[in-house]
Amino acid sequence: MTKKVTITDLAKRANVSVTTVSQILNGKDDRFSSKTVKKVRQLQKEMGYAPDFNAQSLIRRSGRTIGVLVPNINNPFFSRFLRGIESEAMAHDYIPLIFGSNNNQKLESHYLFESIRRAADGMIIASAISDLSYIDNILTQNGIPYLLIDQAPVVKGDKVDVNNRLGGALLANYLIKKGHQRVVVVADENPTLNMEERLNGFLETYRKAGIPVNDDQIVKTTLTKDGGYQATNQALLQKPTAIFAINDEIAIGLYRGIHEAGLTIPDDISIVGYDDIDLAEYITPKLTTVHQPAFEMGTTAAQLIIKRIENQSEPIQRVSLPVKLVERQSVERKID
Amino acid sequence: MTKKVTITDLAKRANVSVTTVSQILNGKDDRFSSKTVKKVRQLQKEMGYAPDFNAQSLIRRSGRTIGVLVPNINNPFFSRFLRGIESEAMAHDYIPLIFGSNNNQKLESHYLFESIRRAADGMIIASAISDLSYIDNILTQNGIPYLLIDQAPVVKGDKVDVNNRLGGALLANYLIKKGHQRVVVVADENPTLNMEERLNGFLETYRKAGIPVNDDQIVKTTLTKDGGYQATNQALLQKPTAIFAINDEIAIGLYRGIHEAGLTIPDDISIVGYDDIDLAEYITPKLTTVHQPAFEMGTTAAQLIIKRIENQSEPIQRVSLPVKLVERQSVERKID
Repeated sequence: MTKKVTITDLAKRANVSVTTVSQILNGKDDRFSSKTVKKVRQLQKEMGYAPDFNAQSLIRRSGRTIGVLVPNINNPFFSRFLRGIESEAMAHDYIPLIFGSNNNQKLESHYLFESIRRAADGMIIASAISDLSYIDNILTQNGIPYLLIDQAPVVKGDKVDVNNRLGGALLANYLIKKGHQRVVVVADENPTLNMEERLNGFLETYRKAGIPVNDDQIVKTTLTKDGGYQATNQALLQKPTAIFAINDEIAIGLYRGIHEAGLTIPDDISIVGYDDIDLAEYITPKLTTVHQPAFEMGTTAAQLIIKRIENQSEPIQRVSLPVKLVERQSVERKID
Repeated sequence: MTKKVTITDLAKRANVSVTTVSQILNGKDDRFSSKTVKKVRQLQKEMGYAPDFNAQSLIRRSGRTIGVLVPNINNPFFSRFLRGIESEAMAHDYIPLIFGSNNNQKLESHYLFESIRRAADGMIIASAISDLSYIDNILTQNGIPYLLIDQAPVVKGDKVDVNNRLGGALLANYLIKKGHQRVVVVADENPTLNMEERLNGFLETYRKAGIPVNDDQIVKTTLTKDGGYQATNQALLQKPTAIFAINDEIAIGLYRGIHEAGLTIPDDISIVGYDDIDLAEYITPKLTTVHQPAFEMGTTAAQLIIKRIENQSEPIQRVSLPVKLVERQSVERKID
């Protein structure tokens, strides 16, 4: 139970009427002396008067809020993505309401309802939602537009697209060129669409090159450093010359596991990752990976959802962002 | 402009009165047949009906919201801290409104006002606020309690305390015991109180052991991986046998700089960090550091602020959390 500073408090201190304060704070300065304007603005800052947002929202039925659901704020890819959203939202006077679902279905739906209750005008969903049609149903009935990142939309909707299939293919071509005939992929156990596409792009390229990658060569784990670490032994059992980690977090976990096994990267085994988080340049050897424009994905997602919020009849928006291979020092040429 | 599902929509679909729906959703089930109760609850889920939060907040003057200001959500220490807050807040039906200030004063004050506008009931401030008395003034006038993390309170207030001075001393004792007579500290250019205490605890311990650490041996930089990387050359110029990085992010940056300089950790130079972020175990060699209970700091901060929100006359609360040295492989014994 807080007692906020009211417009009446401010008017009293400034020794002017409530109407005067209201008009000045709404930018109608020219009706008053510059002395009065200055005094009111000064006092607003000093007293910390903030117009009552809930009253405004009730009238506008808008919280100038974007609900954002990500799987894991501990993953540096998502922290950068969130910073992109934050920066764009702020430029348009929106606030992101950030939720980390930890891939927990109960949390997801709790946060979804919280976003609706708190008058979110739109949502950006980057979490691996277990039941998309349920979410679509709830949000559509509440008239709340949403944008999915890295997932197949239920219906035709706005989309921020990164060519994951191409990213997977780039890595496969690179490893093939470097002579790696026997590879292992460490992938996630509950793949979102983007992960499936990375994997498919990779496998397809190997298949077309006439080099089979069997199911035994695909190890499933969680998308974390610990997931990568735990998967090391199973991956090494297949005697690969190179491992494709489906994201950089897994690659970092594999680095640890491989070091502990007494092996050296890339002399004994080569590694490639995916995302190009900042850490990729800080580990030894520096990680060869596919660069995803995480920050730009965030700003673009925020741009699209704000456009959609402000104009529901806007034509469907699709933005495709580029990926590229970043060659560093974690792959060695293999001469059989 | 969203059109939310209303209680009237729900009542119509359920073919009961609005009062019936309201009573059932407020837990007064026993007045109705189990069939009706089941139908109403089922429809609430299906239609995604969420009671209008803004109307509720206007009456209660509470948003069941905790504003949280951190310097940098990219730092894994703060992601864990935030997860602690999130988990505790959720257990008490509060929502954290998370803002990353990037140590930018304009952003700080923007987010502060946003929190007030959005009916935050309390705030947790872990950001290095440039003008604390201004913030204290604004929040106090609005009747919003706040909790500072790692900073000196303006007035006597609630506090979550970690013994930073002890943490610094533990590291100094450890390095002295290992024979390191010539050390460099890589510290931050705009230190918060916790950082100053780490540094002071460290310096004091060296001084008491009769080993001077001059100003030249303290290199200032930003609290990021890149900050540590950029500081490497200046640190190496002092020819230290060991470097104390004031946080683990800086230590990871130093690892990179030292590798690029062709040196080996710990054979050529020893490194210690501070925080014990999960990465400390993933880099090679594993980093010796001081463990801070980031998650518990988050849950404790949330507990204290919620108690304070719900009872402003509660006596001042102080919780002190332990730190401990975690010995890994980044320090070598020095025999001169």
